[in-house]
Amino acid sequence: MIRTVEQYLESLRDGRVIYSMGERVKDVTTHPILRRVIEHGAIDWVLANDPERRSLFVTKNEDGEEVNFLWTAPRSAEDLLHKREAYIEGSRYYGMGLHSMGVDSLAASRVLAGRMDKKLGTNYVERVEAYRKYIQTTDLGVTGAQTDVKGDRSLHPSEQVQHKDYYVRVVDKQKDGIVVRGAKYHISATPCANEAIVLPCRTHQEEDKDYAVVFATPLNAKGITLISAEPEIRGLTTEETKWDYPTASVFGIGDGECMIIFDDVFVPWEKVFMCGEWQFSRDIAYLFGTFHRLFACCRMVPVLESLTGVAALMAEYNGLDKYPHIRTKLAWLVQLTEGFKIMSKAACMFPEKEPDMDLANPNGMYTNIAKYMYAENFHDATKAVQDICGGIAADPIPYRDWMNPEEKPYLEKYLGGKAGIHTEHRLRAIRLLLDITNGRHDTHTIHAEGSLAAQQMMFYTNADWELYKATAKRDAGIPGWEKHTEVGKLKEYSSLVESKLPPVDTSYKI
Amino acid sequence: MIRTVEQYLESLRDGRVIYSMGERVKDVTTHPILRRVIEHGAIDWVLANDPERRSLFVTKNEDGEEVNFLWTAPRSAEDLLHKREAYIEGSRYYGMGLHSMGVDSLAASRVLAGRMDKKLGTNYVERVEAYRKYIQTTDLGVTGAQTDVKGDRSLHPSEQVQHKDYYVRVVDKQKDGIVVRGAKYHISATPCANEAIVLPCRTHQEEDKDYAVVFATPLNAKGITLISAEPEIRGLTTEETKWDYPTASVFGIGDGECMIIFDDVFVPWEKVFMCGEWQFSRDIAYLFGTFHRLFACCRMVPVLESLTGVAALMAEYNGLDKYPHIRTKLAWLVQLTEGFKIMSKAACMFPEKEPDMDLANPNGMYTNIAKYMYAENFHDATKAVQDICGGIAADPIPYRDWMNPEEKPYLEKYLGGKAGIHTEHRLRAIRLLLDITNGRHDTHTIHAEGSLAAQQMMFYTNADWELYKATAKRDAGIPGWEKHTEVGKLKEYSSLVESKLPPVDTSYKI
Amino acid sequence: MIRTVEQYLESLRDGRVIYSMGERVKDVTTHPILRRVIEHGAIDWVLANDPERRSLFVTKNEDGEEVNFLWTAPRSAEDLLHKREAYIEGSRYYGMGLHSMGVDSLAASRVLAGRMDKKLGTNYVERVEAYRKYIQTTDLGVTGAQTDVKGDRSLHPSEQVQHKDYYVRVVDKQKDGIVVRGAKYHISATPCANEAIVLPCRTHQEEDKDYAVVFATPLNAKGITLISAEPEIRGLTTEETKWDYPTASVFGIGDGECMIIFDDVFVPWEKVFMCGEWQFSRDIAYLFGTFHRLFACCRMVPVLESLTGVAALMAEYNGLDKYPHIRTKLAWLVQLTEGFKIMSKAACMFPEKEPDMDLANPNGMYTNIAKYMYAENFHDATKAVQDICGGIAADPIPYRDWMNPEEKPYLEKYLGGKAGIHTEHRLRAIRLLLDITNGRHDTHTIHAEGSLAAQQMMFYTNADWELYKATAKRDAGIPGWEKHTEVGKLKEYSSLVESKLPPVDTSYKI
Amino acid sequence: MIRTVEQYLESLRDGRVIYSMGERVKDVTTHPILRRVIEHGAIDWVLANDPERRSLFVTKNEDGEEVNFLWTAPRSAEDLLHKREAYIEGSRYYGMGLHSMGVDSLAASRVLAGRMDKKLGTNYVERVEAYRKYIQTTDLGVTGAQTDVKGDRSLHPSEQVQHKDYYVRVVDKQKDGIVVRGAKYHISATPCANEAIVLPCRTHQEEDKDYAVVFATPLNAKGITLISAEPEIRGLTTEETKWDYPTASVFGIGDGECMIIFDDVFVPWEKVFMCGEWQFSRDIAYLFGTFHRLFACCRMVPVLESLTGVAALMAEYNGLDKYPHIRTKLAWLVQLTEGFKIMSKAACMFPEKEPDMDLANPNGMYTNIAKYMYAENFHDATKAVQDICGGIAADPIPYRDWMNPEEKPYLEKYLGGKAGIHTEHRLRAIRLLLDITNGRHDTHTIHAEGSLAAQQMMFYTNADWELYKATAKRDAGIPGWEKHTEVGKLKEYSSLVESKLPPVDTSYKI
Repeated sequence: MIRTVEQYLESLRDGRVIYSMGERVKDVTTHPILRRVIEHGAIDWVLANDPERRSLFVTKNEDGEEVNFLWTAPRSAEDLLHKREAYIEGSRYYGMGLHSMGVDSLAASRVLAGRMDKKLGTNYVERVEAYRKYIQTTDLGVTGAQTDVKGDRSLHPSEQVQHKDYYVRVVDKQKDGIVVRGAKYHISATPCANEAIVLPCRTHQEEDKDYAVVFATPLNAKGITLISAEPEIRGLTTEETKWDYPTASVFGIGDGECMIIFDDVFVPWEKVFMCGEWQFSRDIAYLFGTFHRLFACCRMVPVLESLTGVAALMAEYNGLDKYPHIRTKLAWLVQLTEGFKIMSKAACMFPEKEPDMDLANPNGMYTNIAKYMYAENFHDATKAVQDICGGIAADPIPYRDWMNPEEKPYLEKYLGGKAGIHTEHRLRAIRLLLDITNGRHDTHTIHAEGSLAAQQMMFYTNADWELYKATAKRDAGIPGWEKHTEVGKLKEYSSLVESKLPPVDTSYKI
Repeated sequence: MIRTVEQYLESLRDGRVIYSMGERVKDVTTHPILRRVIEHGAIDWVLANDPERRSLFVTKNEDGEEVNFLWTAPRSAEDLLHKREAYIEGSRYYGMGLHSMGVDSLAASRVLAGRMDKKLGTNYVERVEAYRKYIQTTDLGVTGAQTDVKGDRSLHPSEQVQHKDYYVRVVDKQKDGIVVRGAKYHISATPCANEAIVLPCRTHQEEDKDYAVVFATPLNAKGITLISAEPEIRGLTTEETKWDYPTASVFGIGDGECMIIFDDVFVPWEKVFMCGEWQFSRDIAYLFGTFHRLFACCRMVPVLESLTGVAALMAEYNGLDKYPHIRTKLAWLVQLTEGFKIMSKAACMFPEKEPDMDLANPNGMYTNIAKYMYAENFHDATKAVQDICGGIAADPIPYRDWMNPEEKPYLEKYLGGKAGIHTEHRLRAIRLLLDITNGRHDTHTIHAEGSLAAQQMMFYTNADWELYKATAKRDAGIPGWEKHTEVGKLKEYSSLVESKLPPVDTSYKI
Repeated sequence: MIRTVEQYLESLRDGRVIYSMGERVKDVTTHPILRRVIEHGAIDWVLANDPERRSLFVTKNEDGEEVNFLWTAPRSAEDLLHKREAYIEGSRYYGMGLHSMGVDSLAASRVLAGRMDKKLGTNYVERVEAYRKYIQTTDLGVTGAQTDVKGDRSLHPSEQVQHKDYYVRVVDKQKDGIVVRGAKYHISATPCANEAIVLPCRTHQEEDKDYAVVFATPLNAKGITLISAEPEIRGLTTEETKWDYPTASVFGIGDGECMIIFDDVFVPWEKVFMCGEWQFSRDIAYLFGTFHRLFACCRMVPVLESLTGVAALMAEYNGLDKYPHIRTKLAWLVQLTEGFKIMSKAACMFPEKEPDMDLANPNGMYTNIAKYMYAENFHDATKAVQDICGGIAADPIPYRDWMNPEEKPYLEKYLGGKAGIHTEHRLRAIRLLLDITNGRHDTHTIHAEGSLAAQQMMFYTNADWELYKATAKRDAGIPGWEKHTEVGKLKEYSSLVESKLPPVDTSYKI
Repeated sequence: MIRTVEQYLESLRDGRVIYSMGERVKDVTTHPILRRVIEHGAIDWVLANDPERRSLFVTKNEDGEEVNFLWTAPRSAEDLLHKREAYIEGSRYYGMGLHSMGVDSLAASRVLAGRMDKKLGTNYVERVEAYRKYIQTTDLGVTGAQTDVKGDRSLHPSEQVQHKDYYVRVVDKQKDGIVVRGAKYHISATPCANEAIVLPCRTHQEEDKDYAVVFATPLNAKGITLISAEPEIRGLTTEETKWDYPTASVFGIGDGECMIIFDDVFVPWEKVFMCGEWQFSRDIAYLFGTFHRLFACCRMVPVLESLTGVAALMAEYNGLDKYPHIRTKLAWLVQLTEGFKIMSKAACMFPEKEPDMDLANPNGMYTNIAKYMYAENFHDATKAVQDICGGIAADPIPYRDWMNPEEKPYLEKYLGGKAGIHTEHRLRAIRLLLDITNGRHDTHTIHAEGSLAAQQMMFYTNADWELYKATAKRDAGIPGWEKHTEVGKLKEYSSLVESKLPPVDTSYKI
């Protein structure tokens, strides 16, 4: 089914234990700060119910039921491109933060289940598919919870000193289910979700097998406490906040994130998708990483377009758009934006087929390159746009000064730019620029969906080292390349032409 | 027709005036240095005559004649991907340097002709197509000559002080043809070509209209003098040079380049494809730039694979392949190699259609991004591989020391790396590394097929500024975005959910 | 004299017209936000009155009167090093923002006056020195106002379209003084200053000579309106703000900045230090730029130490301090911090002597290199520390959650790091990190005291091109180097040894 | 004594076993290639015998004997600055490669001896000082041999698999001395040296104590074989090589380097300066590293000046010197050159005093920063100059073409640049540019005198972490900073002014 926005909103009044800014929240839909998060989540249902976007978001499942397209499993490049399009369209409304988390967690769990069942003879696929059907039918909002709080980063979970709960773990196995304890941090789209799929964030060893656990749970389950992150704007969205923080007043970086504490939470077996199979913990960590980075690459499309756009606007407003060094900076922003966009498209066009499963995973190499492209360069991009904007990016005019009739004439007169540009437009562009290049944006860009190092590891792991080495060996005259499938088909350079050439003329002085 | 290698070689004994290292060359096929260039050119015919590669290189033209596929005009993404595959396959033999020059010059001339005919009512398309048929039938080798010697870079051609011939120009128009004068520099694959297509390298103003000229000419035409570039290896290829310079002994960077001097050379009208239409000089400069950068992106595929491969080999040979900082460098090389490869593939998959012409041009944005990716990063890549290799990259062992039986036991013993690796293989890998990271490679990478600035200009020119600005305006609350075709379809954020939410609870302390 | 803190504070109740966040401020010393700015200014008097720091800040002038050392003119490397020490000590308390502005403006005006008097026969030195004596005796707080609001950056002041007041200019010359109009933007330490020295920010042409004006004025002069910048924290400093924004609650980036509007303000001739001498506008722009960049290089000492320190703390708290890639990042931060510190010290140790004036200016090359070092690298530094800190830098725990007894036990338990580290210390370090790497810091770093381009221009202008070119010519065998003062003293390489060597043995095979 | 150039040259005919390009060399002074190396070494004696430079190079030792200043131990900043001046002056002739190696090895051995004697009660200082006196009196040329051939870089010396000789080690201790075996690689200035001081290149553990050995030996000792590195130019210096390779024809990168094989070489005890004290192997590795990096920072002064100069010449010759983007590149080269120069000067001005020894070591932080500055940036610098030069840097005109009277008129006409510049000068500048930006230069820059990682390790090791952490703790409100010697002297921010301010006015709306 496709729920209405109203049904979705109503479902969030479920008695969950959640805090925001040090206060217990009675109802997330009426809380002045969490409203922004709820609106963010609700967008996904607005779009699914929008007649013009129906074809993008609604499909039928095998039972002929209307379901959200995102809750079906991609089986082809076309499916992935469709999914990408849906993610990008939603991102233009700051949406999809919720759906993407659950969708990508489920996709990763599905592949994992397939691999485990094949190798270990378990029946996880059945459970995962039953859960998918459940979600398709209930149209619940599901987030995905991966990052543990970690404690001492140099120690494995069971080596931690203060306590053993720095990573979520199974503390009891019962007849009907398991009991889990621990905490997950910066879990996106949580106040606006109904359920969460919980999965490990790192490779575990055998001694840490209790930490190798994947499961789904409603967020109002007994024992779950949510601590909502500090929002970018500490208060209700108003005309003032819209001027001062034009994007953060819609949805701020990190606004939807929660710390989720699992204080001995019971999970029934049918919602447990991994339990102790430590050898597969790396698989699930990598799978979710890559799947969700594809979303990151959709989410960032409008951000980079907007960043490049505001740079172009400021160049124009300041009268700088004809200067070569400004154009070089703008050209670089374009290159970053368009290079990144096509790279993530390639990730869908060249999917990876999971052996023996009719599933299309996003291409691991291109997805990770695309994510890395913007994450590696975001700080430089902020520097470039701040440079074009000028020092006023550090002390822009707030709403209150602009609205004071004694100050406004001075501001109007003196903060103009190029003739023909409204001073107000220039000031608004500056506020936007500051808003999207702040420290939280910077940090979020390099850490969300995995650190830079996580992507680098994927380049290394996914690389076709045999091709590279064989190519180098052929060039260097080192034997071994002849056996390579591709390179071995090439002929020796030297035999090809030399015999057909006339003898060398030795009369030259060289 | 498809000529045999022998026919091709024979055709180069045509009496051309050519110098190498200060000596007049009697016969390019017997000259110790130029032989390498001739072999480089001959590869294109070796491949076309190779039964296993026939489907890649041979097709039939509309007259049913067997012709080289490269001499047909791409009309679809498939054609461009086919062309790319042919270029890459050839590049694995250091080939295609010759064909690519002529093919890309002809393609640029063809689009140019179409644009001029449409706007000016000329009949250039007819001439260009007649020339294409001529080349298809004769199977001649054709290069493309774009870069002028330029003199004072801050002055237009007609402003130059010492003389007016720093850019090739028409000095006389006669009944049967034109007379041209000037010189082109670093023109690739010239000693091994039969003909050249000559085209301007910059935007010209009306006062420089004599410089707006495109034409084809045989290289043994009266008045043409060729000065062949200093080769990387000054002598014949031997066992010694193969050890010391494993790739330069096959084909060195710049080896095939010539200065071409036009000392009042006559060109018949049927081979003149532009003559005075200065308003279109920018078009031809940009068109050839983009078309030929696609070749550059094919040529570099095996180079980057080899560079990444030799880095991996050296990491392994030195026993360093387990260290994180080494893996980070290797990961970066992979990212560069694979990011660049798929970007140039995207350039073919998303071609640009020329209005009213059934032609598919490579995507201008992706082609230029792909070219820029490796050119911008090549110096850093050389630094990374030199760093992994160690100081021995600066003083590697030459063949003569290795072959001296008194020295060899010492070298064999002391220059070993990881157990199980032959010392000789390690030394060969080091020689390769030095060979492909020398100063000429570095320079060639940033300048061949256009400088970095040339690509940046294309990013700027090709960018969809309206999209970016509209996106930023919508985010900043600046009116104007509503009229944009794409962005204007989006709805206002604020109207979507707020009305469906219950009233704010004002009891919180926030 | 040296005023007491109380005298200083009292002096700020002078009836000035000043706005903050859209409200007219009645008394800057009682205003909840501006108090932070006032405390920032007052530090300079706290230190001058501190017995332990007296030797650093207090000296006697030629009349034997006790005056602030900073108000004396540096005449030697020792004086500059003393000044640097005073600036750094004050910066450790976020002080010197006020004194440095006036001191550097006065120093620049003094050199300018000397140059003008020498060339034009004016008597500006006398006026400047009289003003210095006035300030020494009254111990007023003086800021310096350089940056104009600028309008269209591509147009000269008199070419501006909307109006001619985008740069401060003389609109009337009267018997007793001049009348000025225009506005200056982001002028530091203004709410806490008594007077301002106003100077041009760019090179002017003859047609813009009305804009070539330097003068001093009290800030409560008729016609002056001050609009205080949006503070980092919108409210009073409390225990909560100290936790959430540990440095911004002491003094936020940009907090002390004002827009100063001159609405036909009268300035008596004795306070006019330039009036129409447009040929010298570049001198004053460059002089103040370099002088004040030396202060910037002092102000940033504790900032970079703190940034490096918090990175080291987080590495330790997270248990990451043993990992090579973390150490590499820390090493880079050390290199930046210490390289920058010694560079700015060198700027004092190798002063530039102004011809015919007994004055020591900071070294132009080293001052600008030092400033550029941190400004160019600050975004990368924020990236490095955010990377080490982890994603929690984007959603750190605010005071209110920490203080809620229901949440605290969870936070205490789960947000611990390495054993032995208090969770609270870890959380405080994270808040600091976020606080000093936000977007305003980033922007301020590249724009305050002149953009990156401004420093690059100084490298170019100050460079000893003749030395570099002569060295290259000698190496390349191009004549001309023999006449260079230094390079010309060197001998030809070839003549030195060759004649003493025995003849070459030609029996080798080489 | 100060030997004459003739005495020096004669001393090299000592029967040493040395190979060059696969041939046994009978006499290094008559060998066509090694002559360049010998001239390079002889420069040091030319300068010492030059009346104009006598004060720089000649001093008296405590016995009143005239000796080379470099062979005295620096005891003050003045001594280090004097040494730096001597190194730079010599470097302008490509000299000091020889002296610096021995001088820095001896200095490191001297500090090491002091530390060992103090801790272990040995009498190494006596031996080192006796050796110093011997060298002062004989005026021999001494090199320093540090880098081992290393084998598998991941294994300690005694863990190596193929054999245990990948690092030089003691294989026998006898009554009169020790017997050593192993090989050192890329040891500078060896064919032109009389003796070598041999020292370890890494930290050794106890099981590798046989590898912890420092000693001096004549290079014609029994058992020593020298294999000279491949020269940049394979032949005698001629007019042609001077045109084609203007600096390599004087002295090429790596030309003087040798592999030194120790095939059971006997060393008498009086020349053994460490033998088994493995705990001190890190000290000697670090000491020599830092001492010799100071030389590196002198050697590079003329190189960077020349590189910056040739960039400026090419900008001028090409008519590009007015373009902002070219000026930005030139400005960056200036910043690099001058920043690096003053940093290495600071390394001398702020020496580190060795406890209880009257010795001044170069400042470890600044020396390593200076070295890193140019090494980290050299590849970017080559890119910048190649970019300014244009594509002709990849295919410059060689001597033979230029001297051919048939080609020269064409070259002269067409390869001119800006009016007024001789074509020959332009071509010479291009040859120089190519010559100093080749792959060997690049590699040498990052590896000679220690890799980039080696310097980074020194930043980390030398850093004042306590200062940084205390500063951050004070800012973050984390206790612990109060006990720091410097930071603890600072007062709390908050107590300083607040009490003197009037109460807050709460009537504002904020």
